[in-house]
Amino acid sequence: MRGVIMHAPGDVRVEDREHPQIVDPTDAVIRLAATCICGSDLWPYRGADDVHDATMGHEYVGTVTEVGAAVQNVTVGDFVVGSFFTSDNTCEICRAGYQSFCVHRTPAGREGTQAEYARIPNADGTLVATPGQPDPDLIPSLLAASDVLGTGWFAAVAAEAGPGKTVAVVGDGAVGLLGILAAKQLGAERIIAMSRHADRQALARRFGATDIVEERGSAGVARIRELTDGLGAHSTIEAVGTQESMTQAIRSTRAGGHVGYVGVSHDVTLDGQRLFHSGVHLHGGPAPVRRFLPELIQLIWDREIDPGVVFDLTLPLEEAAEGYKAMDERRAIKVLLTV
Amino acid sequence: MRGVIMHAPGDVRVEDREHPQIVDPTDAVIRLAATCICGSDLWPYRGADDVHDATMGHEYVGTVTEVGAAVQNVTVGDFVVGSFFTSDNTCEICRAGYQSFCVHRTPAGREGTQAEYARIPNADGTLVATPGQPDPDLIPSLLAASDVLGTGWFAAVAAEAGPGKTVAVVGDGAVGLLGILAAKQLGAERIIAMSRHADRQALARRFGATDIVEERGSAGVARIRELTDGLGAHSTIEAVGTQESMTQAIRSTRAGGHVGYVGVSHDVTLDGQRLFHSGVHLHGGPAPVRRFLPELIQLIWDREIDPGVVFDLTLPLEEAAEGYKAMDERRAIKVLLTV
Repeated sequence: MRGVIMHAPGDVRVEDREHPQIVDPTDAVIRLAATCICGSDLWPYRGADDVHDATMGHEYVGTVTEVGAAVQNVTVGDFVVGSFFTSDNTCEICRAGYQSFCVHRTPAGREGTQAEYARIPNADGTLVATPGQPDPDLIPSLLAASDVLGTGWFAAVAAEAGPGKTVAVVGDGAVGLLGILAAKQLGAERIIAMSRHADRQALARRFGATDIVEERGSAGVARIRELTDGLGAHSTIEAVGTQESMTQAIRSTRAGGHVGYVGVSHDVTLDGQRLFHSGVHLHGGPAPVRRFLPELIQLIWDREIDPGVVFDLTLPLEEAAEGYKAMDERRAIKVLLTV
Repeated sequence: MRGVIMHAPGDVRVEDREHPQIVDPTDAVIRLAATCICGSDLWPYRGADDVHDATMGHEYVGTVTEVGAAVQNVTVGDFVVGSFFTSDNTCEICRAGYQSFCVHRTPAGREGTQAEYARIPNADGTLVATPGQPDPDLIPSLLAASDVLGTGWFAAVAAEAGPGKTVAVVGDGAVGLLGILAAKQLGAERIIAMSRHADRQALARRFGATDIVEERGSAGVARIRELTDGLGAHSTIEAVGTQESMTQAIRSTRAGGHVGYVGVSHDVTLDGQRLFHSGVHLHGGPAPVRRFLPELIQLIWDREIDPGVVFDLTLPLEEAAEGYKAMDERRAIKVLLTV
C-alpha cells in the first residue's frame, strides 16, 4: 500500500509500504477514507523536531477491514473515527475522561495514518462507529473530529468556556478556529479571536467569533483587557505552543479565569512567580479526544456543526508533499488527503 | 506604639512607630489581639528577598478601635479577622471569589501587622467580625484563619480535594499541615503527608493524614505512585514554593488530576513540554482567604476545627526576634506573638 514517509525535514515522499496486519487480538485494520496533515507535523518538517524516515499522520476516518479476535465494539464494514492516542477506555484514567493518558495508550500514528490502511491498537476503546455510512460531504467534518475539532473542543472545555463567559482564542490555525466553534457550542457569550489573516478572521466569525484582535504580544493583551473592563478574559484557549502564545494566553486571562492550552509546547518555560501572581487556572496537554467523539460525531451527523470547512485544500494522498508545502507556507490552513 | 522592623536579613527589632490613623474613609484601625510570623517572612529574613527597614507582618486578629466615615459592616469594639490582601468584596473579581486579586486590593501588611495597632484599608470588604467576643483559647485558631488556614484551605479547594479523592501534600509547614486539615474537612478519602519530621508527622496525623511519605524528589514521587496503583494522587497540595516542591507536586499527580499550589514561588520555572505531557490542572497563587473566612470562623467558633495548634511557640511581641530565629532554625513550625 501507499503511505507518507518524512525522510528528513522538508523531504516528504509517498512510497510503497507493507500492508498493516493484526498484531494483537485487540487491533483493527481500517481502510482510510481520508487523512490529513496536522499543524504538529510541521514541527519536524521545519526541523524543530528530529525526524528520520518517519511514517507520518495520526488523524483518520475510514472503514474497518479486519478485526482481532478480542474486538467486540466494531466490526468489518463499520465506518469509524478514532484519535491520535489509542485507549482501552476502561482504565481509571479513561473513566475520568483522560483517554489520551490511558494506562494502555499507544500513539495511533506509530505506523502513520497518512496511508491507505492503518492498524489501530485498542480498537474497542478507541474507534467510534458512525450511526451509518456517512454521506461523502460529511467525511471532512468527521476527519476533523479525529484531532483538530476534538483538540479545540478540549481546549474550550479546559478553559471552562460557557454561558456568560468571554473567551479569548490565541492561535488562528485549525485548532484555534475549532476552539471558537466549540466555545460557541458551549454557550460562550463573547468570543475574541486573535488573528491577523483575513481568511482566518472570516472563518473565525463564521464559527462564532464576536470580536477580532489583530494585535499581538503586550499590545494584544492590552486590547483584550480593553474589551473586558480591564479584567481580562474569563477563558482563554491557547492553540499554538510557543513561549509568546502561552505568555499571551496567561496574561489575557483574569485572576480566577481558566487557560486551556493545547498547542504542543516547544521551548516554553513558565516563570513560577509570574504564574503564581496571575491567579489563573491552567489545564491542557494532549487532548482526550475520545471523551468527546460520540457527542462530536452526533453533532456532525445531525449537521449542527461543520468543522470540515477548516480543510481549505484537498489533495490526493500521492500529492502529500505539496500539502506539507502549502501548510508550511501558510497557503492552506489545513490539508485533507483523499485516499 | 510598638512594632516589628526588619532592618536587613537576620536583623529584626521591635521599635516605637507611629500610631496608625484613619487615612481613607473606608479604613479601620484595629488593636491586635495576636499576630504571627509567616513562613514567607523567612524569605527576606534569609536574604532571598530584598529587605531594608521594612515593617513586617500581614496576619491579624483584634478589636476595631476606630472606623472611617464610610465603614458600615464593622464597628468599634468588634472582634475581627482579616487577610493579607484587603479587598472591596464587591468588584467582579471579588464576586467570583478571588478577593486576593480585587481591583482595589492593597497589601494589608503595608504598615505591618506585627505591631500593637494596624490600619486596615477596605475595612468593609476585608474584615469579618466573629459572632461575639471570642474565648481567649480561640484566638490562635482565629489568627490561623487570617492566612495559614485560609491558604491551606484554598490549596485544598484548588486541588479539588473531596470525597473519593487521594490527596498528596508537599510541604509540612503550617500551610501544608492546614491543607491536610482542609482536605479532611472537604471529605478526602486518603491524605498522604510528605514529611520527615516526627513532630510535624504527628500533627499531620492529628489533622487527618492517613499516610506519611518520608522520601523526597523522585523517590517521593515513586512512593506516591506506589500508594496510588501507579497513577498518582487525584489532588496535590503544594505548600513550599521551590523548584523541587513544584516538580514533586506535578509529578505526584495523575493526568487529569489537580495541583493546588500556594507556596510563594521563588526561582521556579516550569518546563512547558513536561507540564503539557503531565495533563494536570494547575491552580494557585495568593489565596483569596476572604472567600473562606465566614465559613472558617464559624468552624472555629463551633470548635469543629483547631488550626491554632500549628502555633507551637508563643512569645510576646517584644521577643519577635527570637520568634524569627526559632522559625528560621526550624525549632518552631509557627510562632504566635501576643500583643
